[in-house]
Amino acid sequence: MEWIEGGGVLSAEGFRAGTARCGMRAAEGQPDLALVVSERPAAAAGVFTTNKFAAAPVHWCRSRLPAADARAIVINAGIANACTGRQGEEDVQSAASLVAELLDCRPGQILVASTGKIGEVLPMDKIADGIRASFERLARDDHAARTAQQAILTTDTRPKACAVRAGAGRAQFSLGAMAKGAGMIAPHMATMLCFVTTDAAVPAELLQRCLRQAADVTLNRVTVDGESSTNDSVIALASGVSGAAVTDKCLAVFQNALRTVLGELARQIAADGEGASKLVRVRVSGALNEADAERAARAVAESLLVKCAVRGGDANWGRIVCALGYSGAELSAKRTCVDIGEVRVFDSGEPTGRDASGEMTGSEVTLTIALGKGDSEATVLSCDLTEEYVRFNAEYRT
Amino acid sequence: MEWIEGGGVLSAEGFRAGTARCGMRAAEGQPDLALVVSERPAAAAGVFTTNKFAAAPVHWCRSRLPAADARAIVINAGIANACTGRQGEEDVQSAASLVAELLDCRPGQILVASTGKIGEVLPMDKIADGIRASFERLARDDHAARTAQQAILTTDTRPKACAVRAGAGRAQFSLGAMAKGAGMIAPHMATMLCFVTTDAAVPAELLQRCLRQAADVTLNRVTVDGESSTNDSVIALASGVSGAAVTDKCLAVFQNALRTVLGELARQIAADGEGASKLVRVRVSGALNEADAERAARAVAESLLVKCAVRGGDANWGRIVCALGYSGAELSAKRTCVDIGEVRVFDSGEPTGRDASGEMTGSEVTLTIALGKGDSEATVLSCDLTEEYVRFNAEYRT
Repeated sequence: MEWIEGGGVLSAEGFRAGTARCGMRAAEGQPDLALVVSERPAAAAGVFTTNKFAAAPVHWCRSRLPAADARAIVINAGIANACTGRQGEEDVQSAASLVAELLDCRPGQILVASTGKIGEVLPMDKIADGIRASFERLARDDHAARTAQQAILTTDTRPKACAVRAGAGRAQFSLGAMAKGAGMIAPHMATMLCFVTTDAAVPAELLQRCLRQAADVTLNRVTVDGESSTNDSVIALASGVSGAAVTDKCLAVFQNALRTVLGELARQIAADGEGASKLVRVRVSGALNEADAERAARAVAESLLVKCAVRGGDANWGRIVCALGYSGAELSAKRTCVDIGEVRVFDSGEPTGRDASGEMTGSEVTLTIALGKGDSEATVLSCDLTEEYVRFNAEYRT
Repeated sequence: MEWIEGGGVLSAEGFRAGTARCGMRAAEGQPDLALVVSERPAAAAGVFTTNKFAAAPVHWCRSRLPAADARAIVINAGIANACTGRQGEEDVQSAASLVAELLDCRPGQILVASTGKIGEVLPMDKIADGIRASFERLARDDHAARTAQQAILTTDTRPKACAVRAGAGRAQFSLGAMAKGAGMIAPHMATMLCFVTTDAAVPAELLQRCLRQAADVTLNRVTVDGESSTNDSVIALASGVSGAAVTDKCLAVFQNALRTVLGELARQIAADGEGASKLVRVRVSGALNEADAERAARAVAESLLVKCAVRGGDANWGRIVCALGYSGAELSAKRTCVDIGEVRVFDSGEPTGRDASGEMTGSEVTLTIALGKGDSEATVLSCDLTEEYVRFNAEYRT
């Protein structure tokens, strides 16, 4: 497997993208609508928010995936089309119908995703114009990929994309993705928008299974602020254009590629958390089981006091131990160890007295925790909490 | 029942308090050790943190309560004596032994509580001097109450205390309390230090039951930052000096007094959350059961995005609905209603389009939520999240 430099959602064969500006995003001059089209009917899978107020586009996609014949995803940024009642459902239907008309297929073959403010209704005239303009601009060049990756952003400070090339022998395939997400990022799926394309041939049910597994250990282990949004969706399309067929028998290569790409996007998302100045990597080992490992890692990763300590470059390990203690994870208080970077600060339940503040000066901080209970492990990615996060989110909507 | 103006931990008869400065707290010139003594052996009960790294003083008290013959509580602020291993346990034993010697009783009759930095060892020479000095100063006047209420604070900006007088006929009693807590305040007990005194006569087991019930719906429903500390403790002492006997048969008056006092302290704590500028009251009704009501209220109260919106005076109700959606509480998405102050912003699953920003300008903001599932309700208190919280906690220890 190798990285495709500058790769993204159009690295796989069989896909084109087009964008338009509908004026829904605050950022001046930025596109806010993207259309990603598969030349052939593609196998499609999705993993969606668990929020009970899931947005209208989530309802639409969830009821249709996995599917064997998806043709396109239409995505808008700036308005979430969440908590918009019956009108919201109708608007999704209209958008899908218009794209289907342009592509000469059924509306059910079109997937829809939205991100942005909750409770506002989409400006459907502008969306319709945007869909038509995006369709006219469909292309597979670098510019098309870059603008699509731009068009799905909201509070992100930079686009997020990557791609790999993998395979065995002549059965080579590409797999790439783009994502957005900076705030309202949290566990239980419900993390962000992410769109994966591959030119491997993968049956829809198998693609669904792979996507769920890969998302669970990558995108679902990023937390910026513990919020699970109403909209977030990971959608994968497999065009099969490369001719490389993925079956149950040769699954590992594909799974590895998918996990690698989603893992890299998870890292990019955590590093670009709203107001974040540092990426925080919380590795927990010695847990009774993987769920417990994740629980402990998440408690540390989401602790406001830990996040503030990272912000201040303060090796305040007491806050880490405290978070482990209330996480609900099984642990041995007398065997628990905590390292900040390379420095052990808490050893088998006793303070070591060592100063780890030198380990907190870089742009990434790693917290390594051993619970002394078993053999399971998990890593959760997070970021520090800064004054900018608060300022930004106190002012976002007004 | 009536409020005792300026009342607190010495309003009930049979108690005295003394304080000293041991130099553990950063604040210049402030006392940081308090001794609260019951003239007679008192019934005692306690509710403690659920954190698995509970501090040494918590272990000490938990193994001794409820008890029929407690004589004193010794409290220090500035160092938590948590994660201090065997040394921490020995230090608690020494402190209790010294107080017992001065009061001519057994060490097991002395309760201990600490709050402050995790991972540091107590300066036992200074603690011993402080205990002796506090003992010399034991008194029951206003000054003694005020300085005790000061001595237990850490990052609080003001002391927290109140008291009531209640009873039926000649069986009158007083019940008062003092508390501390501003950050690292959260659910699952584990909220703060709180010390309750009453001159009613209450059997220890009954006192324990009443304290648990009252704490569950008051102090356990305050959240500043979702952190459950290693140290927090609510301890109640009943001296019986008033002669008013509380039995199972006449319990309601006592329970009501206890709940009122703890409820008022919960309010004082939320309003003084670290960096807080506004108190947030989240009332949930229409839940399937009380646990679900609390779960929904807590998700809203702890949502960083909601807390930032309150900070900005921004009636961003989408964030409230989003938090309800991921709370895990059962709800009817089509029957859910949300009011900000007196303004309905989300009505039976549809936005109303009404602007509620005028409801967010005061020092208290009330969010009222109906889940449309059942008859249960709960209220959780919180505060806004400000740049000051982040700045403060990024700099606290360094």
